[in-house]
Amino acid sequence: MERITTPELARKFIEEQVKELRAQIGDKKVLLALSGGVDSSVVAALLIKAVGKQLVSVHVNHGLLRKGEAEQVVRVFRDELNANLVYVDAIDRFLDKLAGVADPEKKRKIIGAEFIRVFEEEARKLDGIGFLAQGTIYPDILESVGVKAHHNVGGLPEDLQFELVEPVRILFKDEVRIVGKQLGLPDSMVYRQPFPGPGLGVRCPGAITRDRLEAVRESDAILREEFAKNGLEGKVWQYFTVVPDFKSTGVTDGKRTFNWPCIIRAINTTDVIEVTVEHLPAELIDHLVQRITTEVPGINRVLFDYTPKPPATVEYE
Amino acid sequence: MERITTPELARKFIEEQVKELRAQIGDKKVLLALSGGVDSSVVAALLIKAVGKQLVSVHVNHGLLRKGEAEQVVRVFRDELNANLVYVDAIDRFLDKLAGVADPEKKRKIIGAEFIRVFEEEARKLDGIGFLAQGTIYPDILESVGVKAHHNVGGLPEDLQFELVEPVRILFKDEVRIVGKQLGLPDSMVYRQPFPGPGLGVRCPGAITRDRLEAVRESDAILREEFAKNGLEGKVWQYFTVVPDFKSTGVTDGKRTFNWPCIIRAINTTDVIEVTVEHLPAELIDHLVQRITTEVPGINRVLFDYTPKPPATVEYE
Repeated sequence: MERITTPELARKFIEEQVKELRAQIGDKKVLLALSGGVDSSVVAALLIKAVGKQLVSVHVNHGLLRKGEAEQVVRVFRDELNANLVYVDAIDRFLDKLAGVADPEKKRKIIGAEFIRVFEEEARKLDGIGFLAQGTIYPDILESVGVKAHHNVGGLPEDLQFELVEPVRILFKDEVRIVGKQLGLPDSMVYRQPFPGPGLGVRCPGAITRDRLEAVRESDAILREEFAKNGLEGKVWQYFTVVPDFKSTGVTDGKRTFNWPCIIRAINTTDVIEVTVEHLPAELIDHLVQRITTEVPGINRVLFDYTPKPPATVEYE
Repeated sequence: MERITTPELARKFIEEQVKELRAQIGDKKVLLALSGGVDSSVVAALLIKAVGKQLVSVHVNHGLLRKGEAEQVVRVFRDELNANLVYVDAIDRFLDKLAGVADPEKKRKIIGAEFIRVFEEEARKLDGIGFLAQGTIYPDILESVGVKAHHNVGGLPEDLQFELVEPVRILFKDEVRIVGKQLGLPDSMVYRQPFPGPGLGVRCPGAITRDRLEAVRESDAILREEFAKNGLEGKVWQYFTVVPDFKSTGVTDGKRTFNWPCIIRAINTTDVIEVTVEHLPAELIDHLVQRITTEVPGINRVLFDYTPKPPATVEYE
């Protein structure tokens, strides 16, 4: 197949997929775990176009999403695309399970296992599901030959093994984005930065607490807002904040404080194997420090991580 | 008295002090806690000039000094100025007492109390001590009206209360430096950055361990070397490294690492009440990251603290 590089080629791809999906699915129902990331969002939009309300999208809010993400999924899919969307508020469930768990591997396993459990429970409530749609893209298939199990929903029990529908499995990320744009998805969804499966959980290193997680979410929102304002959105590959479980002294209005630092990481890469850092202008640094220490409860310092990969990794755990 | 602004005025001050000190001390012995900081070093050099070996300088190495500092004290005072210097290796004593103590206030108290104990032990070994010399300077007197007990040796027991000798008590820091230069002290001692009483202990936040303390010391030495090479020594008021008790993932030679970050802080101030940050050039940032992550065992990230005071304090605890 020709690589999708233009709106015309994207429209052609969409047309063909809609035909194929209708032929494959017939009048059965399709289930999709809709994270709000570009891949699952494009699959949802494609299936809505093909089979409308036969697609049941399940959005699990595990409490580790960025600020405004769950709201955006509901707005775009339920309100604008009139989708059959099941929104599951599982915030307490996830955060209660994660309480006191400091080991990064255990945290990841709890998040992954709990996600499957919540999704399975929703699946069992539904009748006549014949297919499970997944946002698998071509690099996922290449990678899965190696190590990582990707963000597709593996791990469902035997009696819930549906036939798979993977309409973007032959596409690369840039192609998925062009298709998403043609399907009318908003830029903020189509050009969303890569986001780890366990969400903000890995940016709240060690045992997650609600207050520190909130500090991660609020500082991340300020960083994204300032990057957008300063023309860095779309230019810098990935940028985020981390709030480590460690406090230091500060002073506000003459009174001693003992609070967390907020770490800012802004990086570029072409292959994710080697990563370089983005040096920020002094004025932006000062402005970020000012905003984050003023607006985010619990933060009294802002640190900038200028370590490439190697020797650091992209994320902190 | 006229403010000391020239070498001539410094020489005049030295001449007068030498006369006065000789008259005051006679043939008695003088004891001095010599930290290696500019104030106590200038007092030592003045007293050596005035009464030679009647001055007994005690240098307590508590294990929290910067790289090369104890060696410099021995070289300058014992080897070059032919001083009567007692060097006390109390490293194990201090670090054993501090093991497992995470509370900043407790750490400071242990360091302060242990310092007095070690100094007292040394004082009791000596006969005929009539005077205790101290590097008190004018701002110390101004400040002690308020809160902080300064780095003079208060707290000695009743039977060790000697008469005080404070030859630089009417000087400001810049005057002490001019006097120190005229006394032949090396620039690295005369223009030494301010250094907290508890030394590197406060830059190894939480419970001090020998390996993390060593990471602070080695990274600090690299930072000082690079600041000197890049013309920032003497230009930036204070710069140092902090290694917090918190680890994150990294990768070296394809293998996962789980190590500490090293935080760099470089600041300017005129009054220490308000502090601004020094923005470093991108090339220096990259070079510091490269050197510290390569040369310092246990470090896989370098973070730059760009927080002014307020809302942060200069030190971390």
